[in-house]
Amino acid sequence: MSRVDRFKLRRELVKSALAANDVDLAIITPGENFRYLTNYQALALERITALVVSHADVWLLVPELEYHSALAKCPDLEIISWNETTDPYKKISQLSPKAARVMVDEKMPFFHVQKIQTLFVTQLENFAQVISPMRMRKDDYEITKLREVSLSINRVHQDLIEIPFRNRSEKAIAKDISELILREHEKVDFIIVATGPNSANPHHEPGERLVQSGDVVLIDIGGTSLEGYCSDCTRTYVVDEAPKEFNKDFQILLAAQKLGTNLAMAGVTAQDLDRAVRAELAKTGLDKWFIHRLGHGIGMQTHEDPYLVEGNRQILQVGNVFSIEPGFYLPGQWGARIEDIVAIGQTESENLNNFEHDLKILT
Amino acid sequence: MSRVDRFKLRRELVKSALAANDVDLAIITPGENFRYLTNYQALALERITALVVSHADVWLLVPELEYHSALAKCPDLEIISWNETTDPYKKISQLSPKAARVMVDEKMPFFHVQKIQTLFVTQLENFAQVISPMRMRKDDYEITKLREVSLSINRVHQDLIEIPFRNRSEKAIAKDISELILREHEKVDFIIVATGPNSANPHHEPGERLVQSGDVVLIDIGGTSLEGYCSDCTRTYVVDEAPKEFNKDFQILLAAQKLGTNLAMAGVTAQDLDRAVRAELAKTGLDKWFIHRLGHGIGMQTHEDPYLVEGNRQILQVGNVFSIEPGFYLPGQWGARIEDIVAIGQTESENLNNFEHDLKILT
Repeated sequence: MSRVDRFKLRRELVKSALAANDVDLAIITPGENFRYLTNYQALALERITALVVSHADVWLLVPELEYHSALAKCPDLEIISWNETTDPYKKISQLSPKAARVMVDEKMPFFHVQKIQTLFVTQLENFAQVISPMRMRKDDYEITKLREVSLSINRVHQDLIEIPFRNRSEKAIAKDISELILREHEKVDFIIVATGPNSANPHHEPGERLVQSGDVVLIDIGGTSLEGYCSDCTRTYVVDEAPKEFNKDFQILLAAQKLGTNLAMAGVTAQDLDRAVRAELAKTGLDKWFIHRLGHGIGMQTHEDPYLVEGNRQILQVGNVFSIEPGFYLPGQWGARIEDIVAIGQTESENLNNFEHDLKILT
Repeated sequence: MSRVDRFKLRRELVKSALAANDVDLAIITPGENFRYLTNYQALALERITALVVSHADVWLLVPELEYHSALAKCPDLEIISWNETTDPYKKISQLSPKAARVMVDEKMPFFHVQKIQTLFVTQLENFAQVISPMRMRKDDYEITKLREVSLSINRVHQDLIEIPFRNRSEKAIAKDISELILREHEKVDFIIVATGPNSANPHHEPGERLVQSGDVVLIDIGGTSLEGYCSDCTRTYVVDEAPKEFNKDFQILLAAQKLGTNLAMAGVTAQDLDRAVRAELAKTGLDKWFIHRLGHGIGMQTHEDPYLVEGNRQILQVGNVFSIEPGFYLPGQWGARIEDIVAIGQTESENLNNFEHDLKILT
C-alpha cells in the first residue's frame, strides 16, 4: 500500500465511522490524530490548521502562510486557506452550517474549542470516540514500525552500560543517553535516570545527584521514529552491587512482570491484566508500593488507549500494543520498574522489548 | 526578589484579578501559564496536573506519581495528589463546588475541558483574559531574560556564516544551526532555512534542496533559555551574490522594517503599527507580497499577545515585547523577511536584535 493510500484509507474509515455514528462533522487540529490521517506534521500554533471531515468530504483548513507546505504534504486534499484578516472559524461553520453533532480533537486547545463551540448549538463531543478504536487496532505496517522503534530503544539500553555512571550526575548521564537515543530515533521523548533514593520517584527528573556505588538506577527512556512511532522501555540497574533486600523484591517484580507479558492476549480485559499482576505482587505485600497502573497503549503517542488500569473493562484485542510496567517504590530508599511493550497478534502476543530483564551492573 | 517570591507574587496578582473580575475559579494545566505561576515544568500527559486558583486559595493538583517532583519544585504550595482509581476532576469541583464563573487555561486540551465542563453549570471561560494582560507587561527581570536570550540568537546568526552552504541540503544546514542554537539555549524551538524559491514560503520546512550560488536564503530561528524565555530572529542572506531585482526590493523591506522598529512605542495601537509598515511597502507595490501580520508578542511563548495585526486596536504599552517582521514572498522566485524583537521601555524602545540587518553573504 502506498503512503498516500494508507492515509486516504484512514480518512475514508473516519468518514464511514462518522456516518455510522450519526456525527456530522469532525474537526481535527494538529497532533497525532492529524498526522495519522494526513502524514502532515503541521505546526500547532495560534493560527488554526484543521482537518475537517464530514460523511462525504474532507477539507484541510490552513493559514495562508502554511499553504505551500500543506500542498506539498497533502496534494490529494482539498485545501482551504485563510488570511490574516479573515475569521477561520466561520470558514469551518460554512463547510457544514447545519451540523447537529460535531466532534473535535481530544487535544484541541481550549482557545480553539471556545471559538468552535460558539459556531454550533450542540455541545462539542470528543473525536477520540471515533479515532481511538481505529488507532488502537494497529495493522501490520504499524506493528512493523513499532517493532523497529522498539529495537532502537533496546539497543540504547544495551549500549548505555558503556556509559560511566559512578561519580557523575544524573543530568550528565541523561545527556549521554540522549545522544544514544538520537542515533536511533528522530527525537527524544523522555529520559528518566533515577538513582539511589530518587528511584523511588516514578517520574523523577534527572538532577544533580552524583551516582554512588550500591545505587539502584531506574532508566525509563523513549523516542519517536522518523515515521512517528514511539518507543518506551524501562530497565532497572545497579552500580556495582545491589543491596540484598532490594534484590529479593526485584526478583518478585521480575516474576510479576513476566506474568503480565504472558497473560497479555486477546480476550482479557485491561482491568483484569492490571489485577493479575497486582495480585502476584500482593503475595509478598509488594503491591502496596506499586502506586501506578500496569500500563498504557503506545503508537504515535507514548501514552494512548488502551490503559491497563482498574476500572477499564475494555477487552484487549488483536492489534493492541501496550506497556506492561509494574514497579515498586519505597520512599527514601529505592524503587524499581520493568517495562516491555507487548503487541497482541493473531496467534500469539509479541514482546517488542524482549531482551535481558534482570538487573544489570553499571560502573 | 527571590525566585519563590516572584512566582508567589504572580499567584497573588491572579487571585486579586479573579476577585476584581468576579471569577470564582481558574484551572491551569501545564504549559507556559502554569510555569509562569509556579516555576514548575510539569508533564502535560493524560493524567491531569492543574494549578487551581480561587480568590483566597491556590492548590496544586497532581497525580500521585508526580507528587515528589511537585513537592520539590513547589514546596510553598498546598499539593493535593490523586491516585489511579480516584476521579481527579471531582477533586477540583470539591475545592469550590459553588463556583459560578470558572476559567480554564487557553491551551487546556479538550479531553480535560470536556470533563471539567460537566462539573459546572456555567460555560467555561478563557483564563487568557486574566493572565494575558499580566504576561504582556514584562517586568525588569523578564526584560533581562529576553535580552539575554536575544543576545544568544544574535550570536547564532553571527556564527552561522561560518557554516558551508553551497551544495549542501537545507536539512544538513539546519542540523548545523541546531547545534549552534543548543550551545546558547536550553532547547531549539524552530529552524527555518528556506533557500532559493523555497524562501517564498514563509514557514518552509528545511528539505533536501541543495543550496546554489545566487540563492536567497531566509533563516528564521529561535530557542528557549534555561529560565523559559524565547528568542526569535530572522535575517535574509544570499549565497555569493544576490539577484539585482531582489536587491532592490530587499532595500525597500529594510527601510520598512526600520520604520516599524522606530514607530514601536507606548501609545500606538497594534493595528496602526502593522498599517504603517504595510503602507511603506505599498509605495512600491511590495505590500501585495507581504502576506502575514507584522508581528507577535514574545516571552515564555514564541507567539503570544500582543499580535500586531489588522483588527487589533490594543494600545501598546511599557513592558510589551514583540517582533517586527515584515517580509515579501514572490511565489516560485524568492522571499525575504527581517525580524527583530522590540521591548517597549519607560523612555524608549529597545531593539533586542540590534545587529546587522542588511544582506549577508554565505558561501
